[in-house]
Amino acid sequence: MENSHPMFTSHADTLERALTAIAERAYWSNYPESPSPRIYGEHAAAEGEAAFRAYLGADFPLKDQAGIADWVSTESSPFGVALDVRYPHLDLDAAFAALAEGMPAWRAAGPQTRAGVTLEILDRLHKRVFELANAVHATTGQAFVMAFQAGGPHALDRALEAVAYAYREMTRTPATADWEKPAGKGQTLHMSKSFHVVPRGAALVVGCNTFPTWNSYPGLFASLVTGNPVIVKPHPRAVLPLAITVKIAREVLADAGFDPNLVLLAAEAPGEGLAKTLALRPEVRIIDFTGSTEFGDWLEANARQAVVYTEKAGVNTIVIDSTDDFAGMCRNIGFSLVLYSGQMCTTPQNILVPATGIATDEGHKSLDEVAQGIASAVAKLTADAAKGVELTGAIVNESVLERLANAATLGDPVLESSDVSHPTYAGATVRTPLIRKLGADDAQTYGTEWFGPISFVVGTDSTVGSLRIFADTVGKKGALTASVYSTSEDVLDAMEEAALLAGVHLSVNLTGGVFVNQSAAFSDFHASGANPAANAALTDGAYVAGRFRVVQSRRHV
Amino acid sequence: MENSHPMFTSHADTLERALTAIAERAYWSNYPESPSPRIYGEHAAAEGEAAFRAYLGADFPLKDQAGIADWVSTESSPFGVALDVRYPHLDLDAAFAALAEGMPAWRAAGPQTRAGVTLEILDRLHKRVFELANAVHATTGQAFVMAFQAGGPHALDRALEAVAYAYREMTRTPATADWEKPAGKGQTLHMSKSFHVVPRGAALVVGCNTFPTWNSYPGLFASLVTGNPVIVKPHPRAVLPLAITVKIAREVLADAGFDPNLVLLAAEAPGEGLAKTLALRPEVRIIDFTGSTEFGDWLEANARQAVVYTEKAGVNTIVIDSTDDFAGMCRNIGFSLVLYSGQMCTTPQNILVPATGIATDEGHKSLDEVAQGIASAVAKLTADAAKGVELTGAIVNESVLERLANAATLGDPVLESSDVSHPTYAGATVRTPLIRKLGADDAQTYGTEWFGPISFVVGTDSTVGSLRIFADTVGKKGALTASVYSTSEDVLDAMEEAALLAGVHLSVNLTGGVFVNQSAAFSDFHASGANPAANAALTDGAYVAGRFRVVQSRRHV
Repeated sequence: MENSHPMFTSHADTLERALTAIAERAYWSNYPESPSPRIYGEHAAAEGEAAFRAYLGADFPLKDQAGIADWVSTESSPFGVALDVRYPHLDLDAAFAALAEGMPAWRAAGPQTRAGVTLEILDRLHKRVFELANAVHATTGQAFVMAFQAGGPHALDRALEAVAYAYREMTRTPATADWEKPAGKGQTLHMSKSFHVVPRGAALVVGCNTFPTWNSYPGLFASLVTGNPVIVKPHPRAVLPLAITVKIAREVLADAGFDPNLVLLAAEAPGEGLAKTLALRPEVRIIDFTGSTEFGDWLEANARQAVVYTEKAGVNTIVIDSTDDFAGMCRNIGFSLVLYSGQMCTTPQNILVPATGIATDEGHKSLDEVAQGIASAVAKLTADAAKGVELTGAIVNESVLERLANAATLGDPVLESSDVSHPTYAGATVRTPLIRKLGADDAQTYGTEWFGPISFVVGTDSTVGSLRIFADTVGKKGALTASVYSTSEDVLDAMEEAALLAGVHLSVNLTGGVFVNQSAAFSDFHASGANPAANAALTDGAYVAGRFRVVQSRRHV
Repeated sequence: MENSHPMFTSHADTLERALTAIAERAYWSNYPESPSPRIYGEHAAAEGEAAFRAYLGADFPLKDQAGIADWVSTESSPFGVALDVRYPHLDLDAAFAALAEGMPAWRAAGPQTRAGVTLEILDRLHKRVFELANAVHATTGQAFVMAFQAGGPHALDRALEAVAYAYREMTRTPATADWEKPAGKGQTLHMSKSFHVVPRGAALVVGCNTFPTWNSYPGLFASLVTGNPVIVKPHPRAVLPLAITVKIAREVLADAGFDPNLVLLAAEAPGEGLAKTLALRPEVRIIDFTGSTEFGDWLEANARQAVVYTEKAGVNTIVIDSTDDFAGMCRNIGFSLVLYSGQMCTTPQNILVPATGIATDEGHKSLDEVAQGIASAVAKLTADAAKGVELTGAIVNESVLERLANAATLGDPVLESSDVSHPTYAGATVRTPLIRKLGADDAQTYGTEWFGPISFVVGTDSTVGSLRIFADTVGKKGALTASVYSTSEDVLDAMEEAALLAGVHLSVNLTGGVFVNQSAAFSDFHASGANPAANAALTDGAYVAGRFRVVQSRRHV
């Protein structure tokens, strides 16, 4: 890799290491996930919180951004924290004109310089990870440690992963080639060819409420590093984390000698529906979206001028056949339900168990004993409010509460959801997981997504029946995660085959410190693109290859 | 590469060499393009022709294919050769059921075995290249040498290129990974992960009349090697080359122990519109199409369940600014117009020249002198009918003749098209190229594609004006090729920038043995996917990455 841009030089080793990681997909992380002062320094946490607080109740410092028409304020913290930050609301014609202006120079800079600049952005975001973590915490309702990890290091790792894939893809074609073809009679046809990575055009990133950085970073950085300017449309309730991101990206672009308006924040006024308007702009050629199936499907059907990458709803499923560690299984599943009170797109919803019960290391367990084992694990993790809220966090918005209320009378009770007073935030809305028991014929209930702290233990006629329900629900509605517990290799093989056919990633017999709702950057893929829950995976070749094109020029030597 | 399948073993070196070629994109070819008996053996030509003749007037030997409802015969040779071959017409429900049946075993075979099998298919096609060449010649109207080269070795090279890209893409993720994450306190989380390439589903290949093998092979083999069964819907006038292809593919699949119904021929009855029906089948998840903008746009808009790769119409353009080899320039452009009488999707249509003329090594040349220089080169190549038809071939169908008649009165005459008696085929329809002169304000004429032996010399106000017209027409209608002649580095730079912005591949100052309408596999990309003429390129990462997905399974060690 030869390139003299100082930002490339300073991050070349990191890029090389990331390229190795995506080829191996073993364990690697570039950004430490522990918020410990031993790693981040004694003052990092306090300084980050102070920087966060300085934004509150004011115009966010993006006054230099092109195309600002007015300012909007739309956030409302699940913890009840007063935010009142005002963000730029854009005149779209001016904004798109500005986005286009910097594109030729950004394209001409080439893959290496663009990689250097994007890695510098990630580096500077990492230096302000506590500021980012506070913003994610306050806007999403995630407990602080989770907001730090998922919103900071894990999001940065996913971004770096996407940049590495994009860099690998952009450089798989050489910049130049010498073509010498024997033409007979001792003659040679000799041409010099150059291959140019050209961007598609403006890229739109539509952020979500629950993981504003983690779900947005891969698309944002994959589009940017491949030469496209990016317009970031945050969820109206989770603007601050992406506003900080845009601000830092613009600073780095300017420092590197590029037009800062290559990255713009487009906050929306309440009820404006800005994502629809943006998605249909002819300048928008790439869209990344995380959110509802309804809007994802609308984007795919209507934003025909763009390549559209969507992550939508799904029905995540656990198949329980048998286990040699009943306690470990219940603990593991229980934890996965408690985490962020089930508001992860990867949280299991349907737990399929034979109605006749299962064999375990503790002897035969009936369906109700399995359900109670999981319920007890959940109850234990949430029994102490102070400890519990550090796992559950708060409920992200009203629609989750409504769904929880609607679910409370379905089927038979296993575990009630309780309303918890947050020990620190008086205004927080906290709920513990609800578990209901259903029958195999309740597909009209368990066959759709119930996003939030809602799970169903479904009694099936056998594990074969569980596999059939799994195949049917995931085939129709998709899933981001699947998991199986069995001591039988035949059952594990059958489940793996079913998962491959359904196109969903599978976790097998998780009883320890790895949870089905967590995926590790550089090793686990998030979503597969092979079922209705998402049309793309984070991150693989297909996720990056369509974000640019190669255009060649040839001449005789 | 470890794999014991004998077809992989015997082609592993070829695959390795092809992988090197796509990384270098310098000159390489795996299949000799010269039909010389010194290369292919003394009897190859005669045996190939005999094999071709044995098909005529009979049921094509595909009786073992699943789902045959009846037989259809639709071909009509541009050379007037009586073909009367009957092909299977399918019961679609039975056909799709058969396609699905072999898929799990084909998926489970893995990337290496599938690569070995597809390379064996290419090898056996190559062994019967004269049979294929005769079929392409008779159905497309291409002169024999061109039918041999484009329909045989060049098509096979493009297929191998696609297989290499797909193989590289499938194997960029390792089959397994060992994941060990430090979990604090000396503990390690240790998981074993497996990554599986899973197919999308049935792939549909819609063939075209003019290049039935060359344009179909990349999609066909890219889909097949990535695990998808393929249904091949040939153009009703060019079925035989793809019938032979399907027959050989089925033989190799069976020999390798797979279901031959992984590849099916779906010939259509006259006027049936089978491509539309097939494209909307829910089983079809990938579509490759070459043909009209109208149908390509329809596919993109309506076949929403599939990934759609299209190559459509475009307005190929030459910008002439100046030259230091006027004779060479005219010869080169003239040849590119004569070749297959302009019926290549890459043939130049608009030749933009300043109305005030250009500077050349032979002094100033007026617009009319430039037009006449090109016209004379065309006339010289076609003056002798016997030699001429070996370049022009025959006119592929009636709509080209109609278009030619409509074009004959546009603007001012430069060169008339003439009706040539073919010295060998009494029933052949042969026409030489028509050239008309237009003004810069005739955009309603030169701004759309006139597929066939029709070109326009357009007088512009200056080279700057030519660049503006180039950017405008290609921006609106797309192009597969662009070329420029200039002695000024500034003009060449401006044209290259314009070509990058328009997203079209550029050839510079071609005056020798390379022609703008020819692209060399493993080095030149065909189409870019960056303008309206095509949404994909042959072949790059984006062309293959979406044909499969990776699904993972993980468990604790």
